[in-house]
Amino acid sequence: MIKTNVLVIGGSASGIVAAVTAKSFNPTKNVLLIRKEKQVVVPCGIPYIFRSLESSNQNLISDDVLKKADVDLRIGKVIEIDQQEKVCVTDDAVEIIFEKLVLALGSTPYIPTWLKGNNLENVFVIPKNKEYLDDIKTKLNDCQKVVIVGGGFIGVEVADEINKTRKDVTIVEILPHVLEAAFDIELTVKAEEILKSRGVHLQNGDGIKEVLGEKKVCGVLLNNGKEIEADAVILAMGYRPNNALAQQSDIKLNELGFIKVNEYMRTGNPDIFAIGDCAEKKSFITRTLKNIMLASTACTEARIASLNLYKLSAVKTFGGTIAIYCTTIGDTAFGVAGVTENLAKERGFTVITGSFEGIDKHPGNLAGTHKQIVKLIVDKESGVIIGGQVMGGVSTGELTNLIGFAIQNKMTISSVLTAQVGTHPLLTAPPTAYPFIKAAEVIYKNRWVNYDNSLLE
Amino acid sequence: MIKTNVLVIGGSASGIVAAVTAKSFNPTKNVLLIRKEKQVVVPCGIPYIFRSLESSNQNLISDDVLKKADVDLRIGKVIEIDQQEKVCVTDDAVEIIFEKLVLALGSTPYIPTWLKGNNLENVFVIPKNKEYLDDIKTKLNDCQKVVIVGGGFIGVEVADEINKTRKDVTIVEILPHVLEAAFDIELTVKAEEILKSRGVHLQNGDGIKEVLGEKKVCGVLLNNGKEIEADAVILAMGYRPNNALAQQSDIKLNELGFIKVNEYMRTGNPDIFAIGDCAEKKSFITRTLKNIMLASTACTEARIASLNLYKLSAVKTFGGTIAIYCTTIGDTAFGVAGVTENLAKERGFTVITGSFEGIDKHPGNLAGTHKQIVKLIVDKESGVIIGGQVMGGVSTGELTNLIGFAIQNKMTISSVLTAQVGTHPLLTAPPTAYPFIKAAEVIYKNRWVNYDNSLLE
Repeated sequence: MIKTNVLVIGGSASGIVAAVTAKSFNPTKNVLLIRKEKQVVVPCGIPYIFRSLESSNQNLISDDVLKKADVDLRIGKVIEIDQQEKVCVTDDAVEIIFEKLVLALGSTPYIPTWLKGNNLENVFVIPKNKEYLDDIKTKLNDCQKVVIVGGGFIGVEVADEINKTRKDVTIVEILPHVLEAAFDIELTVKAEEILKSRGVHLQNGDGIKEVLGEKKVCGVLLNNGKEIEADAVILAMGYRPNNALAQQSDIKLNELGFIKVNEYMRTGNPDIFAIGDCAEKKSFITRTLKNIMLASTACTEARIASLNLYKLSAVKTFGGTIAIYCTTIGDTAFGVAGVTENLAKERGFTVITGSFEGIDKHPGNLAGTHKQIVKLIVDKESGVIIGGQVMGGVSTGELTNLIGFAIQNKMTISSVLTAQVGTHPLLTAPPTAYPFIKAAEVIYKNRWVNYDNSLLE
Repeated sequence: MIKTNVLVIGGSASGIVAAVTAKSFNPTKNVLLIRKEKQVVVPCGIPYIFRSLESSNQNLISDDVLKKADVDLRIGKVIEIDQQEKVCVTDDAVEIIFEKLVLALGSTPYIPTWLKGNNLENVFVIPKNKEYLDDIKTKLNDCQKVVIVGGGFIGVEVADEINKTRKDVTIVEILPHVLEAAFDIELTVKAEEILKSRGVHLQNGDGIKEVLGEKKVCGVLLNNGKEIEADAVILAMGYRPNNALAQQSDIKLNELGFIKVNEYMRTGNPDIFAIGDCAEKKSFITRTLKNIMLASTACTEARIASLNLYKLSAVKTFGGTIAIYCTTIGDTAFGVAGVTENLAKERGFTVITGSFEGIDKHPGNLAGTHKQIVKLIVDKESGVIIGGQVMGGVSTGELTNLIGFAIQNKMTISSVLTAQVGTHPLLTAPPTAYPFIKAAEVIYKNRWVNYDNSLLE
């Protein structure tokens, strides 16, 4: 039997942050992290083990982080939580008594049960599992034609990486465009142009019906009857929260299967918190339940959970998922924060949008200058920014974060229009045509000057 | 005699933005921009004409910007403003009658009159003047030893560029460290290490007494008696606002020589606005007068002036200079927003600071990963972020802007600690150790956990 003040179950990004933060802010408490995996992969780095990194060994989170923070580590699997007795039981029958419990159970790749052939040889998914990933990489060495089912972030990133190894790569996406859940059509089209120019084949607008093959995969059959040859198939069809442990321990789930939490990341039990891929997500803007899973959001949730473990703080709460994320295809990056125009309309907002295309250095004659496009989505009534999308170079990630901060602070078009930013020839767009502010200007002009002079803010 | 609704005097960054914005938001008005220069250089791009750009021809702002925006352009020099009659007179005796006037008069390099030898051959300054800059570049071809007097942004950038052309470059800085007006010591020391490792000589802690030479410069003499050989000397000792026109036209100046303006960028005369280097600056944080000149701030002021020309808007005002800027030395970038720790203390704040050193990609094994350091300066009483400094790679510019947005929105340590950011392996720091948020964590822990548990926010 083990006793600990704080027990964290799960060793990926959010588990680590939760444990380290808990110990840092409660130095007199013992913090124990238990996880199944011997070694932990950097979750968002996974696509890059296929080419940009030599191997998955270069994509590990060292346990030194925990050691340095004085967090105890145990490899093992918790199979039972007794909420009343506040004790967890592992599969090797060890009992761990806790005061506070943080569930960072993660998620598992979705494999449709209806998909015939889903268990054929060389049919893969992308889990956070080093051994499994190493195995894919080895087996891909002997493959030439790779079909990736699902054109979301993981599908696109893995496709672009594997394509760099000179294999024939096809993405099968059921929606009309890849990345359509994240971006409005005009940017998905640009992403597709880049993918195609790099040699990735796109098969959009139709889903997979069956994986073909006897013992080993030899292709996929689409709903429209088309067959695509393949000697490897990667299913990138999304992830599902690991909720079994919670469910069997009577910890409440929401209708999407995520562990219900409040804004302190607390479950129904005040001593039990849930964070990351397994924890309920609500949209910061639309307030509806979401199934979006991001390591970055997970880490924010982890921080908030651990800051509220022993004492609630009204100023350290989670206000909902803004969903800030980005990806790269070749040397072009795509970022998004908040809602897309499409989603905003679907949810009932009357929006006004504006885009501006500029450059990410200045003058544009400087080596390495990349085109930069910013699109903003604004609630028409209030002028509050509720979404933004970026296409650009390597500064796209932080620029997307800048839009995320605007959303987080409920900045209006007027406040962005008059905002101060710093600029530098080698690092940013020019001050005269900074696309984020110019996009705000486009919106302001269209809405408040051209069409509705009477309704000035 | 010419008549225009809006007259903008000055054709650099802020003049262009003012004219374009004025026309865009007042499409029925005529907007005329008058400037002295035939061709306009990109102001912040100037240091890069010495090496990164082939020539100053690659560093021009095209007049197409004005043409496209339907702004009229006139090359000429205004020598008189009659405030009562609302008419300007040019040096070729043309009268321009205006309704609204925007002064974007710019600034001029400071050359101390006490500095003996300041007019010797091959003693240069860095003005926004294409012909002059071309002349420096040509003359530098025959020089081997270059002394740059002043280790501010311009001095350091010009030094690093000229150093790339394999000349012997020395910076003479009167303060103990270069960039000391912008950064706290720990970062200036890092900047100095990089400069030195690249071969730039630093002569800190002593000012220049005299430029040596007969007809042509042959060196500089420092206050401490030391002589440094030079066949070219560049004075980068700051800039002074071009205020002569305002002064002789009875437009009020402040005690630093800048044109007095209110938060709408209006001078004492409701029809006359001033923006950019010639216009008064107040610190967003300390509320004291500043002499900082930034193209980015100038463009914000320009937008605000032009949005308030014909109708004031209470939500489009200038709240004071946050002073967000960045620079690069080699492939390392340095950024700053708000006040430094030093300045904050000097002005009377009780501050608490925190730094975190991480990386700008993840995992750190990815090619091109750069160290990233973030320092935050926080008002101890309120927890409000009042300053930040960054050292990192190419995402430093936008990351500095992110800190700038935090300052602008008066975000507290708690709100940064619980903020959402997006992360991506190739574009940002890891979500588990995002330096901006980790620096907030350091501060929070030091202030509110370790030392003063009773004073929780």
